Amino acid sequence: MPAAFQVRTSRRIETVDITGEVQKRIPKDFSGVCVVYTKHTTTAIGINEGADPEVRGDIERNLARLFPHDGDYRHMEGNSDAHLKSILMGPSESIPVEKGSLLLGRWQAVYFCEFDGPRTRTVTLTFLSG
Amino acid sequence: MPAAFQVRTSRRIETVDITGEVQKRIPKDFSGVCVVYTKHTTTAIGINEGADPEVRGDIERNLARLFPHDGDYRHMEGNSDAHLKSILMGPSESIPVEKGSLLLGRWQAVYFCEFDGPRTRTVTLTFLSG
Amino acid sequence: MPAAFQVRTSRRIETVDITGEVQKRIPKDFSGVCVVYTKHTTTAIGINEGADPEVRGDIERNLARLFPHDGDYRHMEGNSDAHLKSILMGPSESIPVEKGSLLLGRWQAVYFCEFDGPRTRTVTLTFLSG
Repeated sequence: MPAAFQVRTSRRIETVDITGEVQKRIPKDFSGVCVVYTKHTTTAIGINEGADPEVRGDIERNLARLFPHDGDYRHMEGNSDAHLKSILMGPSESIPVEKGSLLLGRWQAVYFCEFDGPRTRTVTLTFLSG
Repeated sequence: MPAAFQVRTSRRIETVDITGEVQKRIPKDFSGVCVVYTKHTTTAIGINEGADPEVRGDIERNLARLFPHDGDYRHMEGNSDAHLKSILMGPSESIPVEKGSLLLGRWQAVYFCEFDGPRTRTVTLTFLSG
Repeated sequence: MPAAFQVRTSRRIETVDITGEVQKRIPKDFSGVCVVYTKHTTTAIGINEGADPEVRGDIERNLARLFPHDGDYRHMEGNSDAHLKSILMGPSESIPVEKGSLLLGRWQAVYFCEFDGPRTRTVTLTFLSG
């Protein structure tokens, strides 16, 4: 089975830095690619700057501008904006790994993006040898 | 060669649930990741809710709102909106597999997204051992 | 270590066809998947039509329409539009390979998308056996 961990959020829309949660589950000396995957249809995995928290806020606000919560949708569960952000951003990222370390760029962080929280969600990690 | 199958559509924009087509081609007992890939520049692979067909309609209508068919484009083949949706959504998804079964979440379906149909298209599947 | 090469741009926003740079680094007779990855938070990897350069221009102009350079952002480095395009398009593509050749569709090209140039950037390639 893939490795897995849970992410808890406290707001409807929340971008959580999970870089450390991913890194600590990578097998020692593993090299290849780690596929980080979310099993939920109103969430996504993304990669972007982790240093300035305002970047996360800009992402949340600007996605909300493109897909407003109260937009013109026919799916009646009140979370169509979340489905749209989820499918556009995508449920996974494939990250190179060398000798047990994620080969992220200096400013890159791995984000779990919750668009319909607060919830407890599951993220899986699959390791593919290079 | 990767496994492959064809998808036929009957409308210009059509979101087709291909979960069953992918699942039935996964080798028995295979574990790892299945890379679902489309070779066309006006299509995409996505993952989202498969239960309520209105979700698909919301995705189609809201992407059309962002990238209208009659927008201001210089590519003169009349399908620039399709190219834009295609590159943003991306041509592939990488899905964890355990003992021959796609590890999708309860509500997740794999979608082939046609943005410039109706056409017959090819989807390839590559299996990477975990 | 993954294979790597550099991409130099001469404009702030520039979409560079790197198909040849990727293809020539694929090991002879390798089959599986090549993960093309950018380590920078204001760039992305995309796949779309390479024949008509107007397609690239349409992508650049329409992404700028959705995320204007002078939009309402709180991250104060003047490149929030670039971060937004980067996270939505994503830092990687996973491309099937058969006997040393990328299995791209007839019209598909691999693009390095610079959103905050001009710069010199690094792209890495990881090869996963199928």
